[in-house]
Amino acid sequence: MELQFPVNEEYYCRFKQISSFLHQQHKVNKRRIVVVTSGGTSVPLERNTVRFIENFSTGVRGALSTEYFLRKGYAVIFFHRKGSALPFVNRCPSLFKILRSCSIQNDTININCLENTNFENIKLAAKYLQTYSLQTLFLEFETVAEYYVGLKCISEYCVPIQSSTVFFLCAAVSDYYIPDKYLPENKISTRENNNGNEIMEPAYVLNLYLIPKFLDLLINTCRESFIVLFKLETDSEDQLIKKASNLLEKYRVNIVCANMLHTRREKIIALTSNGRTVIQVDKNSDNPIESKLINYIDQLFANFMDCID
Amino acid sequence: MELQFPVNEEYYCRFKQISSFLHQQHKVNKRRIVVVTSGGTSVPLERNTVRFIENFSTGVRGALSTEYFLRKGYAVIFFHRKGSALPFVNRCPSLFKILRSCSIQNDTININCLENTNFENIKLAAKYLQTYSLQTLFLEFETVAEYYVGLKCISEYCVPIQSSTVFFLCAAVSDYYIPDKYLPENKISTRENNNGNEIMEPAYVLNLYLIPKFLDLLINTCRESFIVLFKLETDSEDQLIKKASNLLEKYRVNIVCANMLHTRREKIIALTSNGRTVIQVDKNSDNPIESKLINYIDQLFANFMDCID
Repeated sequence: MELQFPVNEEYYCRFKQISSFLHQQHKVNKRRIVVVTSGGTSVPLERNTVRFIENFSTGVRGALSTEYFLRKGYAVIFFHRKGSALPFVNRCPSLFKILRSCSIQNDTININCLENTNFENIKLAAKYLQTYSLQTLFLEFETVAEYYVGLKCISEYCVPIQSSTVFFLCAAVSDYYIPDKYLPENKISTRENNNGNEIMEPAYVLNLYLIPKFLDLLINTCRESFIVLFKLETDSEDQLIKKASNLLEKYRVNIVCANMLHTRREKIIALTSNGRTVIQVDKNSDNPIESKLINYIDQLFANFMDCID
Repeated sequence: MELQFPVNEEYYCRFKQISSFLHQQHKVNKRRIVVVTSGGTSVPLERNTVRFIENFSTGVRGALSTEYFLRKGYAVIFFHRKGSALPFVNRCPSLFKILRSCSIQNDTININCLENTNFENIKLAAKYLQTYSLQTLFLEFETVAEYYVGLKCISEYCVPIQSSTVFFLCAAVSDYYIPDKYLPENKISTRENNNGNEIMEPAYVLNLYLIPKFLDLLINTCRESFIVLFKLETDSEDQLIKKASNLLEKYRVNIVCANMLHTRREKIIALTSNGRTVIQVDKNSDNPIESKLINYIDQLFANFMDCID
């Protein structure tokens, strides 16, 4: 299958680091590898883009999961939407808040005027970011094209070590796009609305096309990897489970994590070929659900590696 | 005209601060007021939103313009897209970069290991944010509904001081939306693509409706204010000028700033009833174009106020 996604040549350059990262982290340091995808993709509506369709995702799921993978000794390729949540940083107040209340003397920013939790979080974030600096490779995407081309590239680098690799795909990826040949060159022009108040007719009709099925390609490339998918729905848990089961059956991946939009921070139903496991935390728990989720995945991945050996 | 935009009741609460802000800044401190709108709006495609249409805007234009308005003594209501660029902060490296390279001792973050420019920018940002803290009111929007409802609310607060108020509307606001009654309740379901490679038919057709003309409402509410609009195009400067002229003629605002997507940091054509003024800086200028633009607007606004007196 050919992917007809135009992506800037420059975009590929950054991916060359993967080779030395995998060599150092896997071959030399003997670490297991996890590829975390995180945040939402964007779909351009014009070639000179001023408008696009976004899939909602703050990236907090991927950022927190990355933290727990790192603590368990994994090396992480963190392939995330530019500007979405980053591991450890997501627990800090914004730079705006910090700068608005800090005091600066000579070459230091004094943050002791911040609330205690904020202060501790900043210190911890800096500590962990530096501790895990070599163990994490940060790569970015924006458009759905960059997402697919990037993930394809990453998976190809992982082929030689695929059985030591987890793909943890929690990015919110668009199902729809506008193929290159149908993409208008310039900003869609606005028709006048001289109708007054009541607008009865659509002023612009947007034809969206299904994204080519890319998951097949990834799964065929790294057939021996441990693959975790996510399914999110908004209507009913029954529908969610049904769709997640179909996904599991169709792609024969290791885990499908099913979650509802409004309870996604408290409940994940993990579907495997052996059945379902409900992972749950209290709404106001200090420990995010990702802590339990990564524990669970780590155990299943250990069993999986044992079976291979 | 009735705006049929459903907005969370909570959203309004934050706007109550405007009253005391205007009292203190205008009545007590005798400052002129500018309302800066900045960043792009989002248009939900479902009621339980996982997808939306975004208008591209980093918010840098609004953030930098706010800086120069503050320096000229204006009090600024900075009504911006959540997460978009903020004044002064936009000149700093990200918190991620800072924390990754700083050293922390006791209650201070030592940033002297950063590059000199970065270090100076952080110090200046903290200094200015604190200096102008009382002179700036930060209010956020996300959806196009919040934008319109929020701007309506702000303009109503400004009525008593409208002739001392500039509206500087550089937010990228959607022309299209899906009216509440047509909005699907839940995530749009994905049809299967069993067609293989070539996708010939649109899988999803999105009907977009023109946003009710809101600008009339604002202009009628604050008829004596000094209003600056922005027009951005991607195709040709001729088209741009034509559309900007139409805008000027139709709404009889004070200035329409016309700019092309790819040269927006270097060139703005300001259209007024007296003709055109080209505002231009070198591509690699240290001073952003907003410095010149706000100088220009400040002069025109001074003349405007003189005429009123």
